[in-house]
Amino acid sequence: MAMPESAHGDNCKLEEKLSLELHQELPAVVNELVASCGTKECFEHISPVPLPSREAVVEIVTRSRKALFPGYFDGHKIEAVNLEYHMGMVLMKLYDTMADQITWAVRHDCFRHDQSCTHCGDRGQRAALEFVQGLPEIRRLLTLDVLAAQEGDPASGGVDEIIFSYPGLFAVTVYRLAHLLRHLGVPILPRMMSEYAHAHTGIDIHPGAEIGNSFFIDHGTGVVIGETTEIGDHVRLYQGVTLGALSLSKEEVESLRGAKRHPTIEDNVIIYSGATILGGKTVVGARSVIGGNVWLTESVPPDTKVFLEKPQLVYVGSRRPGKDTA
Amino acid sequence: MAMPESAHGDNCKLEEKLSLELHQELPAVVNELVASCGTKECFEHISPVPLPSREAVVEIVTRSRKALFPGYFDGHKIEAVNLEYHMGMVLMKLYDTMADQITWAVRHDCFRHDQSCTHCGDRGQRAALEFVQGLPEIRRLLTLDVLAAQEGDPASGGVDEIIFSYPGLFAVTVYRLAHLLRHLGVPILPRMMSEYAHAHTGIDIHPGAEIGNSFFIDHGTGVVIGETTEIGDHVRLYQGVTLGALSLSKEEVESLRGAKRHPTIEDNVIIYSGATILGGKTVVGARSVIGGNVWLTESVPPDTKVFLEKPQLVYVGSRRPGKDTA
Amino acid sequence: MAMPESAHGDNCKLEEKLSLELHQELPAVVNELVASCGTKECFEHISPVPLPSREAVVEIVTRSRKALFPGYFDGHKIEAVNLEYHMGMVLMKLYDTMADQITWAVRHDCFRHDQSCTHCGDRGQRAALEFVQGLPEIRRLLTLDVLAAQEGDPASGGVDEIIFSYPGLFAVTVYRLAHLLRHLGVPILPRMMSEYAHAHTGIDIHPGAEIGNSFFIDHGTGVVIGETTEIGDHVRLYQGVTLGALSLSKEEVESLRGAKRHPTIEDNVIIYSGATILGGKTVVGARSVIGGNVWLTESVPPDTKVFLEKPQLVYVGSRRPGKDTA
Repeated sequence: MAMPESAHGDNCKLEEKLSLELHQELPAVVNELVASCGTKECFEHISPVPLPSREAVVEIVTRSRKALFPGYFDGHKIEAVNLEYHMGMVLMKLYDTMADQITWAVRHDCFRHDQSCTHCGDRGQRAALEFVQGLPEIRRLLTLDVLAAQEGDPASGGVDEIIFSYPGLFAVTVYRLAHLLRHLGVPILPRMMSEYAHAHTGIDIHPGAEIGNSFFIDHGTGVVIGETTEIGDHVRLYQGVTLGALSLSKEEVESLRGAKRHPTIEDNVIIYSGATILGGKTVVGARSVIGGNVWLTESVPPDTKVFLEKPQLVYVGSRRPGKDTA
Repeated sequence: MAMPESAHGDNCKLEEKLSLELHQELPAVVNELVASCGTKECFEHISPVPLPSREAVVEIVTRSRKALFPGYFDGHKIEAVNLEYHMGMVLMKLYDTMADQITWAVRHDCFRHDQSCTHCGDRGQRAALEFVQGLPEIRRLLTLDVLAAQEGDPASGGVDEIIFSYPGLFAVTVYRLAHLLRHLGVPILPRMMSEYAHAHTGIDIHPGAEIGNSFFIDHGTGVVIGETTEIGDHVRLYQGVTLGALSLSKEEVESLRGAKRHPTIEDNVIIYSGATILGGKTVVGARSVIGGNVWLTESVPPDTKVFLEKPQLVYVGSRRPGKDTA
Repeated sequence: MAMPESAHGDNCKLEEKLSLELHQELPAVVNELVASCGTKECFEHISPVPLPSREAVVEIVTRSRKALFPGYFDGHKIEAVNLEYHMGMVLMKLYDTMADQITWAVRHDCFRHDQSCTHCGDRGQRAALEFVQGLPEIRRLLTLDVLAAQEGDPASGGVDEIIFSYPGLFAVTVYRLAHLLRHLGVPILPRMMSEYAHAHTGIDIHPGAEIGNSFFIDHGTGVVIGETTEIGDHVRLYQGVTLGALSLSKEEVESLRGAKRHPTIEDNVIIYSGATILGGKTVVGARSVIGGNVWLTESVPPDTKVFLEKPQLVYVGSRRPGKDTA
């Protein structure tokens, strides 16, 4: 590795010379990239209209969680004496960020559809207020979700662990926020929020899904819940469960935009890991249990247990357990 | 999109007026959220006792990795001449953060159980020291884990790539740290650490699991290893493997809290992607191989290969391969 | 919880005394950790050669995305009038970061193989330029990937949502960047980039894979695409799909390093969620459809649909649907 000092010095000079030479090649690339903007070879958003940003979406989720579970995610202690002041600050900042982001999302949508945008600022502010006004109800729902996790998981070390750590609760929190925002007619932002949760937890819940009370997802990595899924109360899912659409040809995709394509899960259903339930006409009846890895494309009546037949395992290299004495 | 300047100015004034009006709606929401604190409709931690924080957990993991793999994660070069100084700084900061966080976790536990908390600070400091004193042994174990990855993966570009990039090594590193912390009787923090790793890697290893030497998880997304799982030496897992509990009714959940609910995997076992092994009495014997997507709820003797019977594939639109000439 | 003020004061003094005592135990741990450096019990990089860093890899991906999709990820608006200036800044910074990181990756490789490193700086600068010069072609490819997502997903709310939010597009973007870098012979960095995308999306695409135009991965969590996989044009994958290697004994691992171990997927193939396709000789013919959860280790001719035979579901607690009237 050792190198004579002078050779090293020469190398440095050569490297600097090369650096100058190579920097001169960059403008050609810049020109090529700029020239392809506005053509079919480039998606860009060159516009005086700003766009919502992922950083702001993370901020919205973070502030909402502070409002929903006071004292858990603040990084400093909240006491009774400063609670109101704290909550006031959180809500004020949340409202302002929401108002800006919704305005930009709406403006951008107008821009895409070549509509004039005289009241986008109004819409942004009003939707932000309605969002903030929806938080007490979302808090009530999340309290039930926490209790459902506590009931459903024998490994849980108490509600604090669930609120701090459980990816299922994080994903459901973001879903409930994004779902409200979608109901308020806000474009782009709800899906940005759900994809933030997806990245964080591996749980992909479309903001359009309708999900009831006391919902619990355990472990959760790989869960997919599609846009038109309906889920009742007290439903429990495990990792890798897909509630999806039946396979589509490219022609069918367009015709199905907006139609019910994902299943309905009634109250008190449990769906074990890796199960896949597909199709807009598929209904899993109340109190039914869907076993692990089941692939289901037809409805199931209430109070039914659905399991795969036990697979024939092929034992090689030793006899089958229980047959050693045969 | 163009708008006369004056109309734009009017709009701005209207938006400001609206903004003032809407801000006046916020205190009602603040009051509603504050009022529901302390009721059954809200989980909060309004208390003079601070809580551990996710940011600190990330810091603990980051500093521990700097101590365990010096020079890899420091963002600047570590030379022999500054190694001791560097390691001293890393350990000192790690100890201080740990002492605070453990103290807060312990205090919070006392608070939840209405116990007095006269020695929480002591416990925090002593546990932090024991944690730091455990790092040399964890380093020894991780060295074996790195070698196991090197042996098990033909795509690996060497140990540096494994240490830098492999999610399996990240998850196992955090598991070994969280497992030690749990053995020291620290509440909340171990699970916060393992859920950080879960979010980062999609690999969910409960801190309570007992895992032997030379452990390798390849790819890893979707892996779940439950609280009472026991894993021997030289075991290799692939993505989507679940080592879980058998299905539980809501009544059984409470009675099983603390019991052995997850399987035992003996030495030198390989478990391929998507396999699910369930139940506290299920033992996979040494040197056995569990094939992909197998769903296993009974024990397997040593030296056994377990595979699904080859599925009958239904070919539509062309003949079955190999039968074209029949 | 209340404590007399004096007792609290005493406690504080005791805690401070303990803190001093315990800090004195740290140097022994520091010495133990320093002593194990350079032994078989520790992987370290104690060296005057700096290493690439994960932070820089994140920066490279972030800047590349700004260059590839101008206006989407900048956090401020880009207008026609400042586009060229903006693009120039982005590319200049990207080039400089790349040149440093590649140089360090190459130097580290030389260091590992005990080679002299007189032209590492040159190689770093030249490879960085070639990388930047490859961006227009990558932009062209990504435009086709966005359109493929638009075509393949009835839930998509337009191209902006796809560019902002879809994890599949993020993973494919990073894959196309990492793949180019690997072709330029750069060590370590490509895999660090792909593991960043894996952590962010749950989608694990090895930079060595060869992937054609108009590629779409929906949802994506749990997808694994191995090093020697070949994928044609207009292929669509869903969550949990593995394109992997056949099972390997520890002896086979070394002999297969570099050989084709992963499948070939021809044009216009669709592979549904949870399907696993294994082996370097396995070819899925053009326009074929592989159903969910299929486990495939042999080739499939073109224009074939492969599905699992419908599993026998075991209904307990109610009759089979459709047989109620029998």
